[in-house]
Amino acid sequence: MEKTDRFNRGWENLLEIDGKAGVNVIESLKEISPDLAHYTIAYPFGDIYNRKTLSNPIKEMTVVAALTAMGTALPQLKVHIHAALNIGVTQEEIAEIMLLMSVYAGFPAALNGTIALKEVVAEREK
Amino acid sequence: MEKTDRFNRGWENLLEIDGKAGVNVIESLKEISPDLAHYTIAYPFGDIYNRKTLSNPIKEMTVVAALTAMGTALPQLKVHIHAALNIGVTQEEIAEIMLLMSVYAGFPAALNGTIALKEVVAEREK
Amino acid sequence: MEKTDRFNRGWENLLEIDGKAGVNVIESLKEISPDLAHYTIAYPFGDIYNRKTLSNPIKEMTVVAALTAMGTALPQLKVHIHAALNIGVTQEEIAEIMLLMSVYAGFPAALNGTIALKEVVAEREK
Amino acid sequence: MEKTDRFNRGWENLLEIDGKAGVNVIESLKEISPDLAHYTIAYPFGDIYNRKTLSNPIKEMTVVAALTAMGTALPQLKVHIHAALNIGVTQEEIAEIMLLMSVYAGFPAALNGTIALKEVVAEREK
Amino acid sequence: MEKTDRFNRGWENLLEIDGKAGVNVIESLKEISPDLAHYTIAYPFGDIYNRKTLSNPIKEMTVVAALTAMGTALPQLKVHIHAALNIGVTQEEIAEIMLLMSVYAGFPAALNGTIALKEVVAEREK
Amino acid sequence: MEKTDRFNRGWENLLEIDGKAGVNVIESLKEISPDLAHYTIAYPFGDIYNRKTLSNPIKEMTVVAALTAMGTALPQLKVHIHAALNIGVTQEEIAEIMLLMSVYAGFPAALNGTIALKEVVAEREK
Repeated sequence: MEKTDRFNRGWENLLEIDGKAGVNVIESLKEISPDLAHYTIAYPFGDIYNRKTLSNPIKEMTVVAALTAMGTALPQLKVHIHAALNIGVTQEEIAEIMLLMSVYAGFPAALNGTIALKEVVAEREK
Repeated sequence: MEKTDRFNRGWENLLEIDGKAGVNVIESLKEISPDLAHYTIAYPFGDIYNRKTLSNPIKEMTVVAALTAMGTALPQLKVHIHAALNIGVTQEEIAEIMLLMSVYAGFPAALNGTIALKEVVAEREK
Repeated sequence: MEKTDRFNRGWENLLEIDGKAGVNVIESLKEISPDLAHYTIAYPFGDIYNRKTLSNPIKEMTVVAALTAMGTALPQLKVHIHAALNIGVTQEEIAEIMLLMSVYAGFPAALNGTIALKEVVAEREK
Repeated sequence: MEKTDRFNRGWENLLEIDGKAGVNVIESLKEISPDLAHYTIAYPFGDIYNRKTLSNPIKEMTVVAALTAMGTALPQLKVHIHAALNIGVTQEEIAEIMLLMSVYAGFPAALNGTIALKEVVAEREK
Repeated sequence: MEKTDRFNRGWENLLEIDGKAGVNVIESLKEISPDLAHYTIAYPFGDIYNRKTLSNPIKEMTVVAALTAMGTALPQLKVHIHAALNIGVTQEEIAEIMLLMSVYAGFPAALNGTIALKEVVAEREK
Repeated sequence: MEKTDRFNRGWENLLEIDGKAGVNVIESLKEISPDLAHYTIAYPFGDIYNRKTLSNPIKEMTVVAALTAMGTALPQLKVHIHAALNIGVTQEEIAEIMLLMSVYAGFPAALNGTIALKEVVAEREK
């Protein structure tokens, strides 16, 4: 795994934004696919999250909306709900995004997103 | 939460059609997103299920088909399998809808829908 | 292409249910993939549509619901709207299924399904 | 169609946020499904867009993200790109949301979203 | 259930390709939907897997790619990861397919596919 | 746009694999989103297509399968059908992949994929 500047700034961004939930994802990939672990740091975090056109809260809110609407990525949705809460997006704003998604992706998507939010909030209160 | 006529007839429709499975969904949302709980009653049940163009069995059969095909809403699929059985759709008809979905959404969707049916039938036999 | 009994009854079912719209699909496949043309007749129409557990109107209504919710199969949705109208499902019932789908798959799915219905109705009035 | 307060404030919100693109959607539904036209105004615009937890720019950015990721709602994505530009979200911010979606929904989703943005920008420059 | 030649060769193909994981799927369907069990053998395995245009490893690699990208069929993805490993596709090749899917379906799809691979590898090492 | 080694080898890979169809995609993005153009070259082509674990024909066959199954990326599917044909995958093998997808993603996905193949073949015969 080449430890380029891009990789290093990706790792710092991952730590800052996703915190422990992000590190756990990388750890879980280390043996089965070190290359996916590498590129998950290098492309999303080294290349894309490093950009400044959107603020971090807006990045996380749009990602939470997209993952809720897709409905195929509940583990990643929970990581990004943690990330959004970590950087100051409120629980009420996240619940509102889920409600908004009822219009665009239907009530099941909104309900499953909201249950994911509930589980993340419970994990953080422990 | 405004308790309008629309909300009240939605609540009655929810009780009649989805029964205990529907009430559990609303209960689970109460603290994390009372507004999603409200609108789940008001729009799907107060506005849409209240309409008479389609019979209740046809409503439930089309919803079961759609949720099976989408493949992203297993908890909601199980609620609607309960609802369909509650209002007289037979287990054989639901299994046949899943088989039909193998044509339109593929065998994995049909298989996952049929496993959901199996779990609902087992829950009801307890 | 083996012209088995299964294939022959599939061809008859295709003619009866989908009519000209179905024949056009098969014709369009003949050179590029005669085998997909064969299996489209043999499995959906020879095996599955031949079954009697669900009435033909209920088959078409559940398929219309599923294709509307999936949102990835507009040409096939239009074929099945034709088929539903051919066997006596009313335009109002199809519009109602699309409205119901706003709850489960969101308003864009319902809107795109309804526009497909509008186009089919216009084609049939020519 | 009941012209309730909810409907009336929905109509005003639709005009304000989506402008001509939104009115065109409603017009196109009037004959084929007046009830879907009604509920499109009443639920998304009368109920949900009326809420104040999220600012209008954040609503539109999260909706643009979700529709780009879903990939099944290009006409609605274009309406919401218009809406986002109408209320001051910049073209660069929308392009950045599409780039962010390459991470979560893949490059085809990001490319198709960006082409939709390009078409909307061209329409507005006429 | 008619035990035609098509069914019999389907059953042999299922045993050869999917092995125990495939038999378990059929067993689980036997009571709830014997007809879906029958057609799962007859169409995918009797008709399609019997064909020789693609080698078995290429069939399994394309199916693994598709199920990873869809993200709605994790149990079936695991069956096909077993099948791919059974016929000589390496763990590294499967991990590489998941990495490739990060480009087309996004990182969540690639991550969930890779976790499924990890679980299958762990099951086989027991 | 930083013209790194990674970008340069990405550009060479794009030219070699996708040819004119790939260059057209990049050209179409140049004004609206030069950064998406950059990262489309850098990540998929500079990072991922550069890897050697899978042969180029297997890469293209798995991508064709995935895009066919997803059903939300017809323009990209056509680019990759061109790419597959360019590097020696036969028209019959691609048609067979679409037929195989009827099992996993349903007949509409298989039909739409096959129509895309038909259009690409017609374009190449001009």
